Amino acid sequence: MPRYKLVIEYDGTPFSGWQRQLNGPSVQQSVEEAVEAFCGHAVRLHCAGRTDAGVHATHQVAHVDIDKDWRTDVVRDATNARLKHLPVAVLSAEAVSDAFDARISARRRYYIYRILDRRSPPALDRDRLWHVPFKLDHEAMDRAAQALVGHHDFTAFRAAECQANGPMRTLDRFDARREGSEIVIYAHARSFLHHQVRSMVGCLKMVGAGRWPENKVGKVLAARDRSQCAALAPSAGLYLAGVDY
Amino acid sequence: MPRYKLVIEYDGTPFSGWQRQLNGPSVQQSVEEAVEAFCGHAVRLHCAGRTDAGVHATHQVAHVDIDKDWRTDVVRDATNARLKHLPVAVLSAEAVSDAFDARISARRRYYIYRILDRRSPPALDRDRLWHVPFKLDHEAMDRAAQALVGHHDFTAFRAAECQANGPMRTLDRFDARREGSEIVIYAHARSFLHHQVRSMVGCLKMVGAGRWPENKVGKVLAARDRSQCAALAPSAGLYLAGVDY
Repeated sequence: MPRYKLVIEYDGTPFSGWQRQLNGPSVQQSVEEAVEAFCGHAVRLHCAGRTDAGVHATHQVAHVDIDKDWRTDVVRDATNARLKHLPVAVLSAEAVSDAFDARISARRRYYIYRILDRRSPPALDRDRLWHVPFKLDHEAMDRAAQALVGHHDFTAFRAAECQANGPMRTLDRFDARREGSEIVIYAHARSFLHHQVRSMVGCLKMVGAGRWPENKVGKVLAARDRSQCAALAPSAGLYLAGVDY
Repeated sequence: MPRYKLVIEYDGTPFSGWQRQLNGPSVQQSVEEAVEAFCGHAVRLHCAGRTDAGVHATHQVAHVDIDKDWRTDVVRDATNARLKHLPVAVLSAEAVSDAFDARISARRRYYIYRILDRRSPPALDRDRLWHVPFKLDHEAMDRAAQALVGHHDFTAFRAAECQANGPMRTLDRFDARREGSEIVIYAHARSFLHHQVRSMVGCLKMVGAGRWPENKVGKVLAARDRSQCAALAPSAGLYLAGVDY
């Protein structure tokens, strides 16, 4: 069957996450049903990164097998036509070989995390970022972040329910920049553990708030002890922003 | 009575506009009720630019008289505490003299208009921009825009219900730039006529789509005939982004 690579954008707010769940609508189910409605048979989507409830994507990638050679613009437009009532859109569809697997073939994943550090709550970007009601020291956060770059055992930043084979990961980039009134954190790696980005961002926030010394982040990494990690940063600030193949 | 200058951010989507209306909730009414709830007497807000239904603000300015000298951070925080259920936030409060009037004292207003020109609908920025489902020539739009910069009779770009004394305005800046996947249009002037920015943007879109030659924008201006203007650009793309005093 012809295989298609889809690039998908979504607002994670109304969803229980990417993956099909019993307890609410998922992005996966929404897109599968939209594809099924025009191709006329059951399909299964496989994605590059299974985002949690409330996490957004500007560039999620998934593959799907459809029994007929459709034009790629028809796949994109027909799917979008059936997603109009939901904040999900297929940005592009591309014919790929059977060897392409959205998860396994991915060589690098790009996440972005947005923090608004000001007293007043966000009126325009509710559910789109983490509101911290005081100024954070983004330069200290950026320095602290460097302790995590490289090949490490990320046990301290891993959810208890993480299904990965092991805790070793190579973090290619992790830094914090001020962009306008926000702090934007960039995390790039071949792959991430479950809750890894939000766990790491939670620690950077403690540094930015002056509650942790900068070197504590490296100590938490070295301790390989989940209980030393800061509280998870909220899902609303996290975006899957790209996948390389 | 002490006068306060408020900088206000809002998502215009759920509102019938800035101004108190019979047919739905307004930004003005929401903020007035929040101020009244903590100061204990009726107040009236006066703003720099009365935005229409669906138009957003990252930096609206209003003034309000309150019968007591409150600390400015108390004015800001107490108002925000009563606006939690609505997408409106006071970014700052400042004590000003009686001579300050948010509308009359304003020397320059800054508007931004966002267009997403791609086939797929926006999933993350619904109600935040104008979705045009094909590429626009932003360079042609930018060139065409220059015909409107300067001191002109803007009758062609003025709503029938505009209450301004006359149609003469001085447009200080009007240009279109590509920023990432969007086109962002900047319009700066001491003041604008009702619907002026959305009327002008509607004309630029015709140029960008190749349906109007670039020089038609200047011809519409010179004709001073509303019927020659393009359809109004949707309110969702417009932001009041600043006011100088």
